[in-house]
Amino acid sequence: MTAARPKAEGPPQPLAGEPAARVLVAGASGLAGSLAAELVWHHPRLELAAATARSEAGTRLDRLHPRRRVPLYLDELDLDELEEVDAAIVGYPHGASAPVVAGLRGLGALVVDLSADFRLGDLPSYERWYGPHGDPDLLEGAVYGLTELHRDAVREGELVGNPGCYATAAVLALAPLAAAGLAGDVVISAASGVSGAGRGAADFADVSENFTAYAVDGHRHLPEIEQELAAAAAPPAGEASTGPPHLTFVPHLLPIDQGLLASCFVTPARAVANDELRALYEERYGAEPFVELVDAPPGVRDVRDTNLCRLFVAAIDGGERIACLAAIDNLWKGAAGQAVQNLNLMLGLAETEGLG
Amino acid sequence: MTAARPKAEGPPQPLAGEPAARVLVAGASGLAGSLAAELVWHHPRLELAAATARSEAGTRLDRLHPRRRVPLYLDELDLDELEEVDAAIVGYPHGASAPVVAGLRGLGALVVDLSADFRLGDLPSYERWYGPHGDPDLLEGAVYGLTELHRDAVREGELVGNPGCYATAAVLALAPLAAAGLAGDVVISAASGVSGAGRGAADFADVSENFTAYAVDGHRHLPEIEQELAAAAAPPAGEASTGPPHLTFVPHLLPIDQGLLASCFVTPARAVANDELRALYEERYGAEPFVELVDAPPGVRDVRDTNLCRLFVAAIDGGERIACLAAIDNLWKGAAGQAVQNLNLMLGLAETEGLG
Amino acid sequence: MTAARPKAEGPPQPLAGEPAARVLVAGASGLAGSLAAELVWHHPRLELAAATARSEAGTRLDRLHPRRRVPLYLDELDLDELEEVDAAIVGYPHGASAPVVAGLRGLGALVVDLSADFRLGDLPSYERWYGPHGDPDLLEGAVYGLTELHRDAVREGELVGNPGCYATAAVLALAPLAAAGLAGDVVISAASGVSGAGRGAADFADVSENFTAYAVDGHRHLPEIEQELAAAAAPPAGEASTGPPHLTFVPHLLPIDQGLLASCFVTPARAVANDELRALYEERYGAEPFVELVDAPPGVRDVRDTNLCRLFVAAIDGGERIACLAAIDNLWKGAAGQAVQNLNLMLGLAETEGLG
Amino acid sequence: MTAARPKAEGPPQPLAGEPAARVLVAGASGLAGSLAAELVWHHPRLELAAATARSEAGTRLDRLHPRRRVPLYLDELDLDELEEVDAAIVGYPHGASAPVVAGLRGLGALVVDLSADFRLGDLPSYERWYGPHGDPDLLEGAVYGLTELHRDAVREGELVGNPGCYATAAVLALAPLAAAGLAGDVVISAASGVSGAGRGAADFADVSENFTAYAVDGHRHLPEIEQELAAAAAPPAGEASTGPPHLTFVPHLLPIDQGLLASCFVTPARAVANDELRALYEERYGAEPFVELVDAPPGVRDVRDTNLCRLFVAAIDGGERIACLAAIDNLWKGAAGQAVQNLNLMLGLAETEGLG
Repeated sequence: MTAARPKAEGPPQPLAGEPAARVLVAGASGLAGSLAAELVWHHPRLELAAATARSEAGTRLDRLHPRRRVPLYLDELDLDELEEVDAAIVGYPHGASAPVVAGLRGLGALVVDLSADFRLGDLPSYERWYGPHGDPDLLEGAVYGLTELHRDAVREGELVGNPGCYATAAVLALAPLAAAGLAGDVVISAASGVSGAGRGAADFADVSENFTAYAVDGHRHLPEIEQELAAAAAPPAGEASTGPPHLTFVPHLLPIDQGLLASCFVTPARAVANDELRALYEERYGAEPFVELVDAPPGVRDVRDTNLCRLFVAAIDGGERIACLAAIDNLWKGAAGQAVQNLNLMLGLAETEGLG
Repeated sequence: MTAARPKAEGPPQPLAGEPAARVLVAGASGLAGSLAAELVWHHPRLELAAATARSEAGTRLDRLHPRRRVPLYLDELDLDELEEVDAAIVGYPHGASAPVVAGLRGLGALVVDLSADFRLGDLPSYERWYGPHGDPDLLEGAVYGLTELHRDAVREGELVGNPGCYATAAVLALAPLAAAGLAGDVVISAASGVSGAGRGAADFADVSENFTAYAVDGHRHLPEIEQELAAAAAPPAGEASTGPPHLTFVPHLLPIDQGLLASCFVTPARAVANDELRALYEERYGAEPFVELVDAPPGVRDVRDTNLCRLFVAAIDGGERIACLAAIDNLWKGAAGQAVQNLNLMLGLAETEGLG
Repeated sequence: MTAARPKAEGPPQPLAGEPAARVLVAGASGLAGSLAAELVWHHPRLELAAATARSEAGTRLDRLHPRRRVPLYLDELDLDELEEVDAAIVGYPHGASAPVVAGLRGLGALVVDLSADFRLGDLPSYERWYGPHGDPDLLEGAVYGLTELHRDAVREGELVGNPGCYATAAVLALAPLAAAGLAGDVVISAASGVSGAGRGAADFADVSENFTAYAVDGHRHLPEIEQELAAAAAPPAGEASTGPPHLTFVPHLLPIDQGLLASCFVTPARAVANDELRALYEERYGAEPFVELVDAPPGVRDVRDTNLCRLFVAAIDGGERIACLAAIDNLWKGAAGQAVQNLNLMLGLAETEGLG
Repeated sequence: MTAARPKAEGPPQPLAGEPAARVLVAGASGLAGSLAAELVWHHPRLELAAATARSEAGTRLDRLHPRRRVPLYLDELDLDELEEVDAAIVGYPHGASAPVVAGLRGLGALVVDLSADFRLGDLPSYERWYGPHGDPDLLEGAVYGLTELHRDAVREGELVGNPGCYATAAVLALAPLAAAGLAGDVVISAASGVSGAGRGAADFADVSENFTAYAVDGHRHLPEIEQELAAAAAPPAGEASTGPPHLTFVPHLLPIDQGLLASCFVTPARAVANDELRALYEERYGAEPFVELVDAPPGVRDVRDTNLCRLFVAAIDGGERIACLAAIDNLWKGAAGQAVQNLNLMLGLAETEGLG
């Protein structure tokens, strides 16, 4: 595949030596896609082959999103014209993404897809929450890109379905408990900034100074969370499963732009102590470059514009409940940042490269 | 008791005819106390006898709080000089309040106390959360002023302990379930604007664009919530109690000034349907002037600057969990508004007077 | 004219005795129109005959705008069906308003128009800024509804063009200087909350945490300001005019919902002292119910949800410059509040009625 | 000078090879000082020798400021113990800074001082605005560190007084006009986020949803602006000066954390056209790495967390007024970012190093 060299004004892309891969960002006009383009543009080892958009082609990316430091004009996506593209991050809406991903895979490109199209291994579950799937055959080989849980699979993967923002925070918070058989009954009360809903989704007058729950009777990220906690809880061969947890997930809308907090409340099967919990999380995440275990409840602005997940866990109510709080930036670890983290692994680069 | 006539500049207090009572607001320099003074000042049937403050005496209230339309100078409180005061709202900090309340009661004034000093009927519980009590003898006759639950007692009361803001929202949300024996296991994930923490409590740089949990291992409003839900769940004489619920309460700090949402998640003893829930709440609150049952999750800004509690209840997860969401303005229904609501009842006035 | 009785749920409109007039609010789905409907609904002397909207008919107003306490369904506007309507507030967009106003005037209703269609006495000026006018003949009898400057004309008026929000603040700030021949050279650097731009105008992601100027080369409120300052500066018969001031007006967008500050910097023809300025403003506005002269720079949140204009004036730079700062709520004194203030006068009611 | 090696937890300082200099940040507990420490910590060529604070010694910097990625404990400053420190950034308050700077200079360290102590060349002017100076003798050799105007002097300087945030934006906006003799009469209406006032300076309840002017009769950054515009306007030897401009500067407080906009309105001696203005600014700033000339009014969030100044200039009102709008991040280009920019030059490094 060859992409026309980007028509850039201003300084050229800052690369340190020969690029490891040429990367296309398709659907770069949205909030997550444009951040992906920016991360690739400033990535020391990747070359941004092109950034495309369906309706904004011809616009310079940093004019459309003045905070993105990418002096590059958006192109239309023409798969027939593409050459020499090694990998792609796709930022299309659910449903519209699968055909584009199929085309890119057909050309041999590694793909990280930001939509929900390749997150759910179970097709009926996808269809129930999102409608008909654009390319069910591709589902089978897709890897769920929650890096910390599926690092090896991501490394070998050719198509990664990047997790939803709520799912990223909630599953990181709960997976150690699920794996330890402690996540019997779970309430996730989560809150996200407005950018989680996409550009143009929120009228200032409705959001500012407000706080409200939404999707109380079921949010699309729920099946992802269920899928991953069930997998985390799967017993070793020969042992009986503890069964899926009773899981409630209710999101809220915060009057801020970026940031997501998942406040998880778990009723464990037996009383637990803080020492045991801390040890469990330390063992699981102590070596993770993007998970920080903290000893006070994390604030979302403390991880803003970073790929970090800050995690706090505590036994409360005399050990009869566990509180796990996970703060991320919904556009970074919850979308474009994790996409680059995954892409680094798929390309054999250091996982943290370009995400400092 | 006589209070020196308030030294007011600007327009006189807008009264419709002879006042029903002369009311002192003691501790009127804080956020809740100053709102109480404003509500009394504009109340058609109450006369603001004086507004006092410990450290801001001599300052005009609308200079100290430019949003309060009260052209009145703050006085020092001198109980020996007070005359002709029929009632008082006291806005002192926990611990400092009890002695002032005792003095006012000694002068025969009806009192609504905004602090925690008269909320908990159980002295050891008070001492555990707040330290030594300033006047334990007064506790006995005090009424917990969650109006909708204790209207008759408030009407007869001479000393009302006004509920905490979180407790107001959570107990209103959960009392119908508790009374129906449905509140077996409860998680309350609540969030409040900054004014809930008092003037000067929050540095802008720490709060803006942020969202974080606090007091994860126990917040002072918890014993109020437990007390009231236990009372609501008390079985009729002769029947066995269902026991206290397993209750978790974790507050969060919102990057806004006013507004509080209590998101309550209840695991009922048996599966329930929406019709049953709606009927339960309609029966309990259908005639309440300040409780609105709504059919979509309420936003905190929709009740800002009102004494309303907007309540949404829904059976979720196939009836195996109940979500109850209660939105209030923490300074109104969560503090000064409810204080006036209670005072109206104590004085034989219409409950809604001065709260339009 | 008769309007079908409003199909209200919930409590009936709170009226004190027989209404003085039945009032239609046409175009009640927008931010200013819906506030006008709310103010009329709660007005002690006005009856809300109907609230109409072009595309939202059939929706309950307090569902569309949860903060508006009006349990009333929006109607379609059908002038042929209207009866017994004494007056109307019209909240249509510029250009679309004139034909509706003409129809209502033809039915004999007094009209306050919130659009720009009846603000500019000079037709070519209107056409330059807004395009063709929908009913130029009506322009002649229209009164510019900046109440404090044109109270007598408003009282006699049958059609009032309600001022723009920026013009309201800027002209109130500057008129005393213009009348005193002191407003030779004027820079107005103003800032407004997002609601000034109308519902849906601002994407949260563009506005939050931001501050920026717009319309630097000319904003539509400029000709209003010029018209009114020229009128205020008109010399008595027989004296020479000082000529129009050199006037620059640049607006900025604030990351808040409601509130507008006009920061005016005037280079006077001669050095002036604070005493002279204070006397000038005191004389002009001392008796005004909705203008407050303050001795410190006013904040926009201090006048939020009120019809007040808070004004601060000071001689600075050794008397060689004058700073006038005017804070209003753009939806109240800058739109719907002033409309009711004008309507009160047109109907012979007390000017402040329903605006407490 | 030797500083004890920083007691760091977590990852070591990320350095690329041998550091060019060991840098002390004294006064690193404030908003600007802590950012300076973070910028030095992540600087590829500088080594953070120590970060000291007067009252927070012993606290880990990223605990005190959770957004700062510096796993380093704050030390007490003990000049007698310091060794091997090549340079320092000092973040002490005005007045307290001069003695510390004197001590560091005595040890031979290059110093960038963030306070006002070394900004004003004229001692009486300093004393009028700030009170007695702590070390007047040091004033003489100090360089005013607005890099774009004094690059050569900074490069040679041993003590640089880093400019105030308002002065940085205003002088960058106006210097080209002053140098061209066009800045005869100037009104600067500026607005800053809360962090400009320092940690703890702003109560959330006073700032949120608000906008207000302050220091209307004179702000401390005014003499800096006057000093620099007078210098910029200095005629070549032998020509007559056009005299100092008539300058008004009024700041406003924005309800955001970071960001500053200077909206400058200039009455030129003669009418000017946009082409001339654009050419003037292009010539002056076209090659500057941190000044971006933009063709639409800049928003403060577009430069947040960057060292950029975005500048927009336009002839308005038929060329009889010039609008110059300059947006910066008050903590970066307005404080710590510019300090590192200056330090880079003083140390012979690339000016942009560590500021990407």
